[in-house]
Amino acid sequence: MTDLTPQQLAEACAEAMFSRDQASQQLGMKIASVAPGRAVLTMTVDNRMIQGHGACHGGYLFTLADSAFAFSCNTYDKATVGSGCNIEYVSPAKEGDLLTATAVELTRGNRTGIYDITITNQADQVVAYFRGKSYQVRGSVRRLEE
Amino acid sequence: MTDLTPQQLAEACAEAMFSRDQASQQLGMKIASVAPGRAVLTMTVDNRMIQGHGACHGGYLFTLADSAFAFSCNTYDKATVGSGCNIEYVSPAKEGDLLTATAVELTRGNRTGIYDITITNQADQVVAYFRGKSYQVRGSVRRLEE
Amino acid sequence: MTDLTPQQLAEACAEAMFSRDQASQQLGMKIASVAPGRAVLTMTVDNRMIQGHGACHGGYLFTLADSAFAFSCNTYDKATVGSGCNIEYVSPAKEGDLLTATAVELTRGNRTGIYDITITNQADQVVAYFRGKSYQVRGSVRRLEE
Amino acid sequence: MTDLTPQQLAEACAEAMFSRDQASQQLGMKIASVAPGRAVLTMTVDNRMIQGHGACHGGYLFTLADSAFAFSCNTYDKATVGSGCNIEYVSPAKEGDLLTATAVELTRGNRTGIYDITITNQADQVVAYFRGKSYQVRGSVRRLEE
Repeated sequence: MTDLTPQQLAEACAEAMFSRDQASQQLGMKIASVAPGRAVLTMTVDNRMIQGHGACHGGYLFTLADSAFAFSCNTYDKATVGSGCNIEYVSPAKEGDLLTATAVELTRGNRTGIYDITITNQADQVVAYFRGKSYQVRGSVRRLEE
Repeated sequence: MTDLTPQQLAEACAEAMFSRDQASQQLGMKIASVAPGRAVLTMTVDNRMIQGHGACHGGYLFTLADSAFAFSCNTYDKATVGSGCNIEYVSPAKEGDLLTATAVELTRGNRTGIYDITITNQADQVVAYFRGKSYQVRGSVRRLEE
Repeated sequence: MTDLTPQQLAEACAEAMFSRDQASQQLGMKIASVAPGRAVLTMTVDNRMIQGHGACHGGYLFTLADSAFAFSCNTYDKATVGSGCNIEYVSPAKEGDLLTATAVELTRGNRTGIYDITITNQADQVVAYFRGKSYQVRGSVRRLEE
Repeated sequence: MTDLTPQQLAEACAEAMFSRDQASQQLGMKIASVAPGRAVLTMTVDNRMIQGHGACHGGYLFTLADSAFAFSCNTYDKATVGSGCNIEYVSPAKEGDLLTATAVELTRGNRTGIYDITITNQADQVVAYFRGKSYQVRGSVRRLEE
């Protein structure tokens, strides 16, 4: 186990985490790629995500970005959670849009980190910018603490 | 129609908006109360909301707060959307928790507003603090623009 | 020393901290009141705070709020710093305005806390809303770590 | 006047704005460079910026970032103000540190924009990340509205 490369470790963490992640699975998210401190997820906007003004509910945009954030900051096999996030909406998403959330690590210190996530649509237009602050807790990502 | 009180208008807006809001309905959200600039929503954390660390995905906490935000800022029959939000997580939510999101208007100017939403659980513990910035667009809340 | 009441401790912390705080002193800030988890500071907008559009630079509004935040989260004699903040501007401040920043603790856990600061002017209009996240470090507030 | 290049216009805006900006001048800020949607400012941490824990007051870090934000979003000769900002502190700044704030435009729509500002020190370490939301008002940057 100890001789995994950082890239292999990132992939093993993502696989273990995704298998337990009912929330991301239920929404049809897919992990396009993962690397140390990075993750790219996709999701198609479907009917259940539409809010009262006829566009994708901001909560689902946030959820996609938040999942990309979670996968990117859990690539070192140290269980890590979000402590706070902010999102700025740039353009609305509509039913059928294929969204891509790209998460990049800005900084990672002793126990905290900052990650930037950009959501784009199939035409490469930016839908939202998200910034997440992470906090490392006890435990492994691959083996759930008991 | 024009002789509705502000409270009646707030309720009519919420009813019209909720009937079109697939996202909030699908998650089992209920509107506990609404008033001008205010809304209280509830949601029970179910299995599909659980993420890879065994707690409620931050995206669903955000979505609940974001819905309470949307219902509170759309109580004047002026279609209003979120321009940006931030959330701070205080304590995790678990499967079966009954969450309440209480939205209060801090300020509302010409076209923009600021709203504070607090999520608590059934033991009255704070789960998260959310702050939303709103932006008034064209159109009515009760009659979708065509 | 150990038989100070929480209120006396809060006041002793504020006094010690303010005496070392060149930044707040230079800007003419005054501590109107302090209590456990709370602080009220005032500042008059002077000429050096005016930016290129003729209003008070947002940086000085932020600095006032940030000082109120610092004094409120350092009332327990546990040295505490800000980890991040956000500010929403509501109405501009002009030269000569007397600003009051009122800081209230929303939550305080093991090492982190969340504080809300509201800046108002002499006419009781809200100028800005600020939210700060705190992080407790080593050391006392009253005796600087060596 | 109308045949200035975008780069010349950005420089003319910065020059006019800086000449009126008492706040930035008083703190010893210098404009290292400016371009459409971009600005780089420097500032040395001096004694008056030190807070009660012996480091640079977060308010001055914010002020530097906020000035870089203001200069970057006012490069089109459309008077533009900040509507809200958030800052995340990464490492403290000390007296004597030479700080550089680099502002980059993420997006600019009809009237609103989003800008990312990074503050680094003389050793190229990141001190803080700042994100600002802008809002275009009436008037020119070069000629103050009367």
